[in-house]
Amino acid sequence: MEAGDEKLMLRELEYIDAGKNSDPGSTDRYFMDRALALARQAFGRTGPNPIVGAVVVRDGSIVGDGYHQKAGCDHAEVVALGNAGSHARGGTLYVSLEPCNHFGKTPPCTDVIKTAGIRRVVFAVGDPAGHGVERGSVDLKKAGIEVIEGVCSEDAAYDNRFFLHSARTGRPWVIAKFGASLDGRVATSTGESKWITGDAARKRAHELRAVVDGILVGSGTVVADNPSLNVRMDHYDGSQPRRLVLDKNGISPVQSALFTDSDSENTIVFTTSRADAKWKNTLEINGVKIIECPKDANGRPDIRFCLTKLFEIGLHSIMVEGGPAVLGSFFDAGLVDEVWAFIAPRIIGGTGAPGAVGGNGVADLASAGPLHRIESELLGVDVLIRGLVSNKEIYKTA
Amino acid sequence: MEAGDEKLMLRELEYIDAGKNSDPGSTDRYFMDRALALARQAFGRTGPNPIVGAVVVRDGSIVGDGYHQKAGCDHAEVVALGNAGSHARGGTLYVSLEPCNHFGKTPPCTDVIKTAGIRRVVFAVGDPAGHGVERGSVDLKKAGIEVIEGVCSEDAAYDNRFFLHSARTGRPWVIAKFGASLDGRVATSTGESKWITGDAARKRAHELRAVVDGILVGSGTVVADNPSLNVRMDHYDGSQPRRLVLDKNGISPVQSALFTDSDSENTIVFTTSRADAKWKNTLEINGVKIIECPKDANGRPDIRFCLTKLFEIGLHSIMVEGGPAVLGSFFDAGLVDEVWAFIAPRIIGGTGAPGAVGGNGVADLASAGPLHRIESELLGVDVLIRGLVSNKEIYKTA
Repeated sequence: MEAGDEKLMLRELEYIDAGKNSDPGSTDRYFMDRALALARQAFGRTGPNPIVGAVVVRDGSIVGDGYHQKAGCDHAEVVALGNAGSHARGGTLYVSLEPCNHFGKTPPCTDVIKTAGIRRVVFAVGDPAGHGVERGSVDLKKAGIEVIEGVCSEDAAYDNRFFLHSARTGRPWVIAKFGASLDGRVATSTGESKWITGDAARKRAHELRAVVDGILVGSGTVVADNPSLNVRMDHYDGSQPRRLVLDKNGISPVQSALFTDSDSENTIVFTTSRADAKWKNTLEINGVKIIECPKDANGRPDIRFCLTKLFEIGLHSIMVEGGPAVLGSFFDAGLVDEVWAFIAPRIIGGTGAPGAVGGNGVADLASAGPLHRIESELLGVDVLIRGLVSNKEIYKTA
Repeated sequence: MEAGDEKLMLRELEYIDAGKNSDPGSTDRYFMDRALALARQAFGRTGPNPIVGAVVVRDGSIVGDGYHQKAGCDHAEVVALGNAGSHARGGTLYVSLEPCNHFGKTPPCTDVIKTAGIRRVVFAVGDPAGHGVERGSVDLKKAGIEVIEGVCSEDAAYDNRFFLHSARTGRPWVIAKFGASLDGRVATSTGESKWITGDAARKRAHELRAVVDGILVGSGTVVADNPSLNVRMDHYDGSQPRRLVLDKNGISPVQSALFTDSDSENTIVFTTSRADAKWKNTLEINGVKIIECPKDANGRPDIRFCLTKLFEIGLHSIMVEGGPAVLGSFFDAGLVDEVWAFIAPRIIGGTGAPGAVGGNGVADLASAGPLHRIESELLGVDVLIRGLVSNKEIYKTA
């Protein structure tokens, strides 16, 4: 194993404590929690793959562990089993996602598991990616291996919400993000919007940008702010998210940073037949991808169509940063999966000052049910409140 | 002393720890903190008096303590000195507010301090109430007693903000309170507003109602909600706040609960010459107090005039509960001292859905500086964020 003896001892001590729990499933949950924690180390870095962690246990001790680091690298099972070596024989493999049964960039994990002599496989959530082959769990059972499914499935599904949701729906997971005052304003009545939240909140927002596959804004934001929509963090060497613009009329200036900077080939504009051909042509010459969309009832690019296109291009998650009209459209269409609200302890006021979420809004409060899995963080004087939109079913296992 | 031996021992042990701090002022701050904690036990129950706590220390030990329980009861100094008895002689009195030097409902504390043989008096903030007599501290110094002023003054001024602010400005302390969604909406676009926040938040709001002298709403809230604006808590036996209505045109229905229930004499309506005489007369017959006010630029009752009237009637604090237009007027006039925002983790959305604070709003973000002394509490799934408006100078000592 890679882990030093001290680390292993700590694990065993923790396990002894966990074993004191009289709940018969607590041992499986304990080791699965370890696998989930390992998986999370790669959160946001494995796209288009899920995050996966694995732990090999023999006679009550962890003899190997590992996680999938990024697409093209070994799967978690392979890392953990390689790590355990011959100690794996006769043991139990805990893995946060159902082992694969197909050749992708790497060979099927089910073969590796059988070869290693594992007797029992415990996984958290099923793999929704069919690949036209038999499920990994079925293949393992046929080989006489005991298979347990669904341990810590809720946490595991939450951690892999981008991957699972997009595999099931054919659309990326959508996060609505905004920074507002206590009274929900994103700008003053005169339009001043920089900066409502402080440095710590903006830094945190860049951390989120780093884990999603795309960042979307409306043309109003492009016109007003000329944003770069990239990840700006010290020592960041990960990939940059796609930069996505909704612009039904083609009003974003052709000289905007998104269309002219060194990363312009990373920008996608969703527009309609109302946009000028010359405008589209100018952007395309710069490498910007233009997608002409069917119109919704308001003449805007149909959001569901845009999301389907983004999934086809390979995006599993996007963050919608505004403005209020765009956020309103996503909420009105019921296509927001998660909310990140950075709330500054200020009062802006003003009937004419824009609220964070425009559109039609909900007609009744029952349709604005509280978010789920709410977490809050203090960021300087600001508070980040985030949670999942309640009408989403991310916990279904495949 | 009333306190048992065990309690005293605990105090001494704590003091020994405090004494280890090498900061020469830490001993004074330690005992003043005790006095402040005692004072807080009566928060919201001493009106129109301030909250005051006192601790008598002799040879490093607390030999007596006490606090002012309510108007008409002994002052904190008298309680603590009575409690200490002959042990007070030669000791130090710590008191959170400058001792009084005049006959009110009780004799001057300065006389009691001198009689008890106290050698040193440490107080946190000066008493701004002049009463046309010499300041208590001056009187004590003349008697040869060492007097130290300003220990823990910031915390003490905060605790007595209602009393100190109103004594200095001639207006009650104003708390703006609202319950809103994450995106700052207080109702849906169709007007549904009950209930955005949950039970725990509403319960907490009633606790706040119990500590202020008055609750103010606009006529829109009276028309829409027909509120009672009273404290509804189990086993509550304190006084009920005054119920205050701003109604420039006299549109609140005469059958409203505020005007017809058993507590109608506790209701004050601020109106203008535009209100109908018959309407006013009907309310007055029910015991409602009508105050006709000069109009502001929007034809509404001038808020500064209303606040001055409320101070004259004896109110040192009010809570403004809405609606958005009324809250906007108070913010626009720069007359809000504190904010209590109950934020529900919901998204309501809708360009037409009312935001928590209307009015003109700030023109630039610099005018919406972050609140001070921010505190946040989790209340079920809701979050209460509260703080002081930054442009207020409550920390000045008299």
